[in-house]
Amino acid sequence: MACEEMVFWAGGVLFSLTSIMFLLLKKNNESIASINLLVNCITIVSYAVMIFGLGTITAPNGELIYWTRWLFYAGSCSLLMYETGVLLKKSKTTISEMMVSNIIVMVTGFLASYTIGLSRIVFFSISSGAFIYVLYLINKKSGRKSLFKKTIKWYITLFWSMFPLIWLLSPAYSMVLNAYWTATFYLILDFITKVLYGLFTVKKS
Amino acid sequence: MACEEMVFWAGGVLFSLTSIMFLLLKKNNESIASINLLVNCITIVSYAVMIFGLGTITAPNGELIYWTRWLFYAGSCSLLMYETGVLLKKSKTTISEMMVSNIIVMVTGFLASYTIGLSRIVFFSISSGAFIYVLYLINKKSGRKSLFKKTIKWYITLFWSMFPLIWLLSPAYSMVLNAYWTATFYLILDFITKVLYGLFTVKKS
Amino acid sequence: MACEEMVFWAGGVLFSLTSIMFLLLKKNNESIASINLLVNCITIVSYAVMIFGLGTITAPNGELIYWTRWLFYAGSCSLLMYETGVLLKKSKTTISEMMVSNIIVMVTGFLASYTIGLSRIVFFSISSGAFIYVLYLINKKSGRKSLFKKTIKWYITLFWSMFPLIWLLSPAYSMVLNAYWTATFYLILDFITKVLYGLFTVKKS
Repeated sequence: MACEEMVFWAGGVLFSLTSIMFLLLKKNNESIASINLLVNCITIVSYAVMIFGLGTITAPNGELIYWTRWLFYAGSCSLLMYETGVLLKKSKTTISEMMVSNIIVMVTGFLASYTIGLSRIVFFSISSGAFIYVLYLINKKSGRKSLFKKTIKWYITLFWSMFPLIWLLSPAYSMVLNAYWTATFYLILDFITKVLYGLFTVKKS
Repeated sequence: MACEEMVFWAGGVLFSLTSIMFLLLKKNNESIASINLLVNCITIVSYAVMIFGLGTITAPNGELIYWTRWLFYAGSCSLLMYETGVLLKKSKTTISEMMVSNIIVMVTGFLASYTIGLSRIVFFSISSGAFIYVLYLINKKSGRKSLFKKTIKWYITLFWSMFPLIWLLSPAYSMVLNAYWTATFYLILDFITKVLYGLFTVKKS
Repeated sequence: MACEEMVFWAGGVLFSLTSIMFLLLKKNNESIASINLLVNCITIVSYAVMIFGLGTITAPNGELIYWTRWLFYAGSCSLLMYETGVLLKKSKTTISEMMVSNIIVMVTGFLASYTIGLSRIVFFSISSGAFIYVLYLINKKSGRKSLFKKTIKWYITLFWSMFPLIWLLSPAYSMVLNAYWTATFYLILDFITKVLYGLFTVKKS
């Protein structure tokens, strides 16, 4: 059993528990809790796919690249973009742009993880461009300022930006981190951006 | 030619005819008939993919598992969930939850059909959990009671629940039924849940 | 390097520039320009996938069939259908029908490009049927007539219909055109239906 498989099992169990938590939180804040419930459920499936190694390629140093992660993010992070757009009181046009741009980020992130050479650089560049555009849409002014909105903007900008940094260190690119540490860092980021963020939005909105 | 191929041709022809029927029924009830038209058209494509055996794996007893079915259900049954949610006067939040949960049911149903061993059991369990949640959302109280709503709730609960039962008997799991009988039972259920249900909703709403 | 690779690079560069153009045009007409921006961005990714030959099959005459194109059209042309539906003041039901039918056109177009023999003919027939239905929905009367609406209807009907004609001449079907000329004609049509159409809708709506 590859070492990272333990991390994926931990992720699967963790997100099963947090899904139950968000299910119970629907009593307090139905619309926001239900989005976070779905985000956490999609994440369970994503971790299960990685546990069983259903879609991987092997990096030159022999470590596995789990590229399926990015396809599930296309689903779960679209829901998070919708939620975030609603909480920041963005227009329907802007929310749609955030969601579609996020899907472009994740599909090209998958393509960058799945391919090598020039292709990988081109897809990572497109993905980064689309991601910067998402951050621009989130951070631009929309209606009255508030501490709540400011917190959301900083939270997303800071922690979502760490995903491409881990990617650059992972077996998918520079191979500084092995598959085990890559999986561990992504799990921590998943916890911060999907569980803690979800709890914050359920409680404070 | 595998015996089940005849069943898939029958399905393709049947859903072509019922698509024409729902096209004509748009005169009576445009919004509901058009959803059923799209559901039936997606089902034609699903049957055509199975006719030509474009995505299958072979079970240990030599029978074929047609896993593409579940990916097309992710599309067609999302539309049915939307229609059902509207007819039951569910909130937008609940309808979105029904649709996304249904997609999780079908994607994990595909993964359970596509894999073997522990993986199959894990994905079938996630799929079943998500399906039970869909049934809970459908059956919970929403607005005033009526015979129409009660009929819809019972119809969906009863006949949609037979899909996982057939799956458990099919080459994808216990291999009690061969590919031919599996295809036949699914065709009967498709007819009940997509054609008869569609006719009922067009006429009675 | 295959000759068509030059055409795909030209497409990638062209749609990068036009994406910047639509980004700047958001100042004039935010909602319409942003849809065209997303359409053009999805097209960049589609061309990048073809540049690196990530999904192809080989025709009997040795030319490559780039079937990924149709999957990206499922995304980009759904957005164009939404935009067109809004500009033609279609009902929500009709816009949804246009979008889902368009996805059926593109998925079966992919299946027709990906397979051979009877399968190819069946999927091309379903795709054509769904496409004719899209054209019917676009061209049927909706609200007051105007030159703007009439222009949109003729523009879409004329230029979108050329895609299946090129397909019939391409390596995917009759092999009259080689991969290079197929790519060139599709690029011209992409420019007409995604850039020029976008400019027209941004300026005139």
